[in-house]
Amino acid sequence: MNDTSMTVGRYLVERLKQAGIGHVFGVPGDYVLTFMDRILEGDLELIGTCNELNAGYAADAYARIHGLGVLCVTYGVGSFSCVNAVAGAYAEQVPLVVITGGPRLELRNPAMLLHHSVGDLGTMDAVFGHITVATANLSDAETAPDEIDAVLHACLSQKRPVSIEIPVDVVDLPCREPGPFAPPPAPESDPASLAEALDEAMNLLSAAERPAILAGVELHRYDLLDAFDALVEKSGMPVATTLLGKTVISELDPQAVGVYEGAMSRPDVRSVIEDADLLLCLGAWMSEMDLGVYTARLDDDRLINANSARVRIRHHFYEPVALGDLVSGLAERMPDKGLKTGSFVPASDALDHAITVQPDADITVKRFYSRMNDLISDDVIVIADAGDALISAGDLVMHRDVGFLGQAFYLSIGFTLPATLGAQLAAPNRRIISFIGDGGFQMTAQELSTIIRHNLNPIIFVMNNNGYTAERLIHEGPYNDIQGWQNHRLPEVFGGGWGVRVKTEGELEAALQTAFGLDDRPALIEVMLDQNDASEQLKRLCAQLAPK
Amino acid sequence: MNDTSMTVGRYLVERLKQAGIGHVFGVPGDYVLTFMDRILEGDLELIGTCNELNAGYAADAYARIHGLGVLCVTYGVGSFSCVNAVAGAYAEQVPLVVITGGPRLELRNPAMLLHHSVGDLGTMDAVFGHITVATANLSDAETAPDEIDAVLHACLSQKRPVSIEIPVDVVDLPCREPGPFAPPPAPESDPASLAEALDEAMNLLSAAERPAILAGVELHRYDLLDAFDALVEKSGMPVATTLLGKTVISELDPQAVGVYEGAMSRPDVRSVIEDADLLLCLGAWMSEMDLGVYTARLDDDRLINANSARVRIRHHFYEPVALGDLVSGLAERMPDKGLKTGSFVPASDALDHAITVQPDADITVKRFYSRMNDLISDDVIVIADAGDALISAGDLVMHRDVGFLGQAFYLSIGFTLPATLGAQLAAPNRRIISFIGDGGFQMTAQELSTIIRHNLNPIIFVMNNNGYTAERLIHEGPYNDIQGWQNHRLPEVFGGGWGVRVKTEGELEAALQTAFGLDDRPALIEVMLDQNDASEQLKRLCAQLAPK
Repeated sequence: MNDTSMTVGRYLVERLKQAGIGHVFGVPGDYVLTFMDRILEGDLELIGTCNELNAGYAADAYARIHGLGVLCVTYGVGSFSCVNAVAGAYAEQVPLVVITGGPRLELRNPAMLLHHSVGDLGTMDAVFGHITVATANLSDAETAPDEIDAVLHACLSQKRPVSIEIPVDVVDLPCREPGPFAPPPAPESDPASLAEALDEAMNLLSAAERPAILAGVELHRYDLLDAFDALVEKSGMPVATTLLGKTVISELDPQAVGVYEGAMSRPDVRSVIEDADLLLCLGAWMSEMDLGVYTARLDDDRLINANSARVRIRHHFYEPVALGDLVSGLAERMPDKGLKTGSFVPASDALDHAITVQPDADITVKRFYSRMNDLISDDVIVIADAGDALISAGDLVMHRDVGFLGQAFYLSIGFTLPATLGAQLAAPNRRIISFIGDGGFQMTAQELSTIIRHNLNPIIFVMNNNGYTAERLIHEGPYNDIQGWQNHRLPEVFGGGWGVRVKTEGELEAALQTAFGLDDRPALIEVMLDQNDASEQLKRLCAQLAPK
Repeated sequence: MNDTSMTVGRYLVERLKQAGIGHVFGVPGDYVLTFMDRILEGDLELIGTCNELNAGYAADAYARIHGLGVLCVTYGVGSFSCVNAVAGAYAEQVPLVVITGGPRLELRNPAMLLHHSVGDLGTMDAVFGHITVATANLSDAETAPDEIDAVLHACLSQKRPVSIEIPVDVVDLPCREPGPFAPPPAPESDPASLAEALDEAMNLLSAAERPAILAGVELHRYDLLDAFDALVEKSGMPVATTLLGKTVISELDPQAVGVYEGAMSRPDVRSVIEDADLLLCLGAWMSEMDLGVYTARLDDDRLINANSARVRIRHHFYEPVALGDLVSGLAERMPDKGLKTGSFVPASDALDHAITVQPDADITVKRFYSRMNDLISDDVIVIADAGDALISAGDLVMHRDVGFLGQAFYLSIGFTLPATLGAQLAAPNRRIISFIGDGGFQMTAQELSTIIRHNLNPIIFVMNNNGYTAERLIHEGPYNDIQGWQNHRLPEVFGGGWGVRVKTEGELEAALQTAFGLDDRPALIEVMLDQNDASEQLKRLCAQLAPK
């Protein structure tokens, strides 16, 4: 192999770099080592995680910040181990490229069972077909460049995972040069449908007495935040977000009222959304979690609901109408502050109440998160694990885009620690602050060692309430107990970082002092809570989920 | 709900108990809590693991010993997290029942996105369809009993995973009483095909000068060990096993020569199998790993190859011919010690060489496993993780059935620690001794805490050679490095157990002394090895796998 000639492996690496990738997450295995060499030669940083599921979560968080994430694993054992991460990315529209090193084509004799294989060699492709929007199996070097380009386009345009399998003996086969990378074309609208939709929407908005906006994560995924900001400002309407869409608007914006999640919401947010006589939903999904588990009262008769490619007004659809065209079109037609609006309370007024530290008092969930609000700055990204951490942190007042990450719909506990790794690498100049329940922490705890290994300095709170408190509130049983760990001592075992256990507000203050001073290693702060202490929001949610 | 009436949930629990299940492995989640209550009421022990992949590995090991294993998880996040364990069970013919709690039927409105779901609600079923032999989605209480019986039969007859989804609101619906459990009928042979196959096989065996047996794991899966013993003894033939089939014969048997794995094998084993003029393969798969990565020289012209349902002699097939009928039929027709055989060396003579401890000498791989041979007794079960642990441990002389477990074909690293949990619960009166590389240990390390929680006393060796040594020998690169852990200190963090790090033979002896004295907690012995120290077998294997 000529040292500078183009090959399939190099082509793929080059395309990833052109798409802005700097890091690839993965675990080595014999079928993928040759391609991993190409990654390293291509000056991409290869971040080895402890296992593949964790690599998947890390790449997912990287993608949420960066617009694309890449995961690289070996055939069979590697790809099957990360299925839950890929499924979560599919569910929450995260653009993730899963690269699997495959067995040599020359050995694919049907009479020979190859290690790591299940059934026949098509099983992996078949499984990934259900949790990706495109798959490519690079068995032909001549067509490989086009196949790579096609799946990358699918990933970037549909904002969902794709899978690429590259057999060991294809990696170094010659192929054509990549040329410049053309990102996929923006979604297009039918001009007449768009015009009519805009007319109708503007008429409804102009006639409304208390219109409001519910904004979702698609505004971020499709890079529409500037256009959305313009619309919001011109309209003067109050804006709530879904939990998954938190930070598509800065929560310091005087029109931002906070997170809407049905009966879990603060009453004033609930009133803005549910009492609106016209609700403009932009890029928000109608999931039961976003809507507070069936408690939301959103009436189709007063709803304009726009998603990536179509808009529904009351009971009819306009399609294809791109979300971006709708947002820009509305902003353009909007009379400056010409709409009527009801009264509302900005999120920053409602929530940003600092507490006075009581040094000897035991930490409670409520006062803990109030204290956390003081720590948020422009440079902070909060990641919160499914359970009370996610629900409580949902009320922190975040300052800017991707200031808040969490699997708010798919809700896989254990996501957050590996996600902290991925996010900190994607946003090296911001501080990651993570909140993780003790049950969720046990799921993926080993990834703290990779955070230590790369000298990253996130601040990780393990909220130790002695088991699955979220589950306890739904349905108590011995299955909600877990083995008690000395979580804060894991840094000693993993060879770096700093850990401490805190029970009182005074101890917490001291820990924060130390943690924020660290610049080359993580802080793990284990917060000891009463087993039954939980946020009011969680108590309301669990009452909805409990078996009847 | 009447407290004694039969319901779908109780029916399923009752059937599992009738099939001999005592423990169910799982992780709670809102969709499965109601069914978990039925498990607990039914006096099955519910073993909560730290995450679902680990639950799957534990249930797999339980099944390898017990004949059936059960895993219970929540919808979506739970089931997608254990895919790799289920795929491994599928690949290695392990009978595993995956029970998933599903969303309420009454909420399955296509317009409503449910949390933990991916695409539509059929995605989980579709994915599991590829890695199971049967799936049941219990949406109708009237047909649920028959569906449960059908999938359990499929699991027990095909020795592969099945999936059962039980929606929250179906668990407590009334259904018919279970009645006695009829295990699936044994596989049947066509009498004429069987008779002709036996005639032909006996003729070939009688004419051979140096016949030999290669025995595989299906003999264990189909409960044929007694019949196989009878055949072996009467025939006088030497017996090698595949690595996956290790311990289908006691390696103290004077006819047992050890594990055959192509060029990785000891030369005398290789000679017995490759120089045989007639090879009787019983229940062994023809995988590249079993056969030493394409180096095996097994010639169809001198091969009788019987698997669960058919036998191939030279170039023709007899079907259906059940493996059990073939083994019994051959034993019956076999003239007592009437076959000629070549010379061979019993495994116990070749391998069971005790070492003289050199207290100050650094531990080497070779001398370590020689020392381990002294520890094997009737009551020991060895579990070894893919990599040099599995390959080295493959040469330990095991005394009886299921004395040795390992994913010898699917080769998923990280399997062994959760498997140790499952095996120790399945075989409470035996001592589990596990060998795990440091890379594999990091994958699933948290499950040590569950072993501690249940006061189990396996002895776990973490073979610390500073990274993925098996991969290093295939293909060196920075991806083979891992973060160095103080592995032996994890018991302190996890709240129990005993850990120690050893570097010299003297330290190892002291550690063994303590470890064997523990009766209510595990010992974690971290063995410090030179990074490039590896078994001769591994070096041979890796040379075969290395990219060319």
